[in-house]
Amino acid sequence: MRITSPQNPRIKRLRKLQERRHRRQLGATLVEGRRFVEEALAAGRPVRQAIYTAAFAAAPAGAALLRALAAAGTELAEVTDRLLEAVAMTETPQGIVAEVAVDEPAPVGPAWWRQVAEGRLPLALLPDGVQDPGNLGTLVRAAAGLGAAGAVLVPGTVDPFHPRAVRASAGACLRLPMARADSAAGAAESARAAGLAVWVAEAEAATPCWAVDWRRPCLLVVGNEGAGVSPEVQRYATGRVAIPLAGGIGSLNVAMAGCILLYEAARQAATAP
Amino acid sequence: MRITSPQNPRIKRLRKLQERRHRRQLGATLVEGRRFVEEALAAGRPVRQAIYTAAFAAAPAGAALLRALAAAGTELAEVTDRLLEAVAMTETPQGIVAEVAVDEPAPVGPAWWRQVAEGRLPLALLPDGVQDPGNLGTLVRAAAGLGAAGAVLVPGTVDPFHPRAVRASAGACLRLPMARADSAAGAAESARAAGLAVWVAEAEAATPCWAVDWRRPCLLVVGNEGAGVSPEVQRYATGRVAIPLAGGIGSLNVAMAGCILLYEAARQAATAP
Repeated sequence: MRITSPQNPRIKRLRKLQERRHRRQLGATLVEGRRFVEEALAAGRPVRQAIYTAAFAAAPAGAALLRALAAAGTELAEVTDRLLEAVAMTETPQGIVAEVAVDEPAPVGPAWWRQVAEGRLPLALLPDGVQDPGNLGTLVRAAAGLGAAGAVLVPGTVDPFHPRAVRASAGACLRLPMARADSAAGAAESARAAGLAVWVAEAEAATPCWAVDWRRPCLLVVGNEGAGVSPEVQRYATGRVAIPLAGGIGSLNVAMAGCILLYEAARQAATAP
Repeated sequence: MRITSPQNPRIKRLRKLQERRHRRQLGATLVEGRRFVEEALAAGRPVRQAIYTAAFAAAPAGAALLRALAAAGTELAEVTDRLLEAVAMTETPQGIVAEVAVDEPAPVGPAWWRQVAEGRLPLALLPDGVQDPGNLGTLVRAAAGLGAAGAVLVPGTVDPFHPRAVRASAGACLRLPMARADSAAGAAESARAAGLAVWVAEAEAATPCWAVDWRRPCLLVVGNEGAGVSPEVQRYATGRVAIPLAGGIGSLNVAMAGCILLYEAARQAATAP
C-alpha cells in the first residue's frame, strides 16, 4: 500500500500521537527508526502500523524488518520522505515510523509495591519533575538495564513515551514496568505506607550513596533538572543521598546521577553475601 | 562598546572559534550562556572577550557578571540578538558568548602518567572515538566531578572544547587536566610503559567493573558510540570490564557507562580501608 496524502486517516492518526493526550487515549506511542522498531518487536509489543520510505524498503535490513512486521500483522504503507518527516518527532526518523501499543500504567498501590519489593533489585525509580525527554529516556534505559523493578510516572514529569524519550531509552521504555501516581508526594506516601524506604537524591546530602543499604525495598526519587526534588516529596523521605563529588564540580545532571545511584543499588544487590 | 556589523574583527574572530582548527590555533574556545561564563571565571580561566545583548545587561544577574568580567579585564561589547545568534554554536546562547583561553594539552609521557598515578583517584579517562559533543562533555563532567586525575585527547574523538561539549560538561572541561596523544593506541602503549593498567570498557566483557581494583593507577578507555573501543587499543588492554546488565538491555550509552565506571573507581578510592 502507498499513501501520498497528508489527509489520509492513518497519517492523521500517527500525527495525533505527537501529543501526549492522544498517546494516552490511543494507548500507543510513535517509535521511529529501524533499531527501535526492531526493539519494539523484540519486546513483544504490538506494532499496529508502520509507514516507511522507498529507500528503507530497498535496503536489506529495512526489507527484513518489513517482512517481520508483516508476519506480525502490522499494517504497512509506503510514503514519501516528506510525509514521513511530517509524522516523525525526531530529526532523523531513518525511514520508518511505527505506532506501537503501550500498556496504560496501573496506579501505585499495595500490589505495585509488593511487585517492587519482590524484585531482584527491589527499587522503583520516581523521576519527580524531570523535563527533558532525553534525560528521562536515559533514566529509563538505566533503570531497565540495571534491573530496577520499575518506574513511577507522575504529572509534571515528561512522558516516557515521548518519541525523543523512547529514542534516548533505546526502547527500554517498552520493557520497564511502570506505574502512575497523581503526584510525586502521593507516590512517596504510598511507598512509605507499604513499608518501602524513600530515598531522595540531592547533591548536597550528607549521606554518600554507598552508605545506603539498597537491598531494602525502596523508592528512589530524582528531581527536576533545575529545582531538584520537590519539597512535598521531602516530607516522606527516609533520607537524602548524594554522590560525593570533587574538583569544584557542584553537581552532575539528573540522568548521570540517576545512572550512578541505580548502579550502586545494582552492585550491592549483585555482590551481597 | 557596541558592535553592529558582522564584519567587525572581533565578531569574525569569535566566528572562527566555531572551528576546531581555529580554536587550537587561537588557544581559546567559545563559552555560551551566563552560567558557563561564570564557571570559566570561577575556574580562573582568562575570559578574553565577551559579547552580550541589551536584555542580558538589563537583567541583574547579567549586569553582575558583566561587572565581574570588566574587573577581570575582559573586553566587552553589546551586540544585537541576531549578531549573538550568528556567533553562537548552541541554540540558546542566553545573551552572552565569550572567548575563553584554554591551555594546549601537553603530550602524554612519563610526567603525565606520574601525575595521574599520584592522583587521589589515579585514573585517566581516554574517550576513543567518541563522536557526540554531548556525550564527551558528559564524560568530562563525570571525570572532573568524580575526581579522576585527567583525560587524554586523541584524533578521532570530538573536541572537548566544542561549544556543545563545553555546555554538556557544565564548564568542567575548564577544570579537568588534559593531555593529548597522536592515537588512542599510542596513549594506551604509553600508559602501559609507565606501569599503568589499561582497562577497556566493553558491554560483553566477562569481568564486572566492581571486580577491578581501581586504586591501582590506570587508563580507562571508553569507545565510539557504535563501534566501541578500537582493535588497536585492545592490544594494550590489561583487561576488559563490563557493567553487568539485566532485562534484555544490551548496553548503556557511552556517557552513562563512563559515568558508572568513573563512579565505581571513585567509590573504591573513597571507601578503601
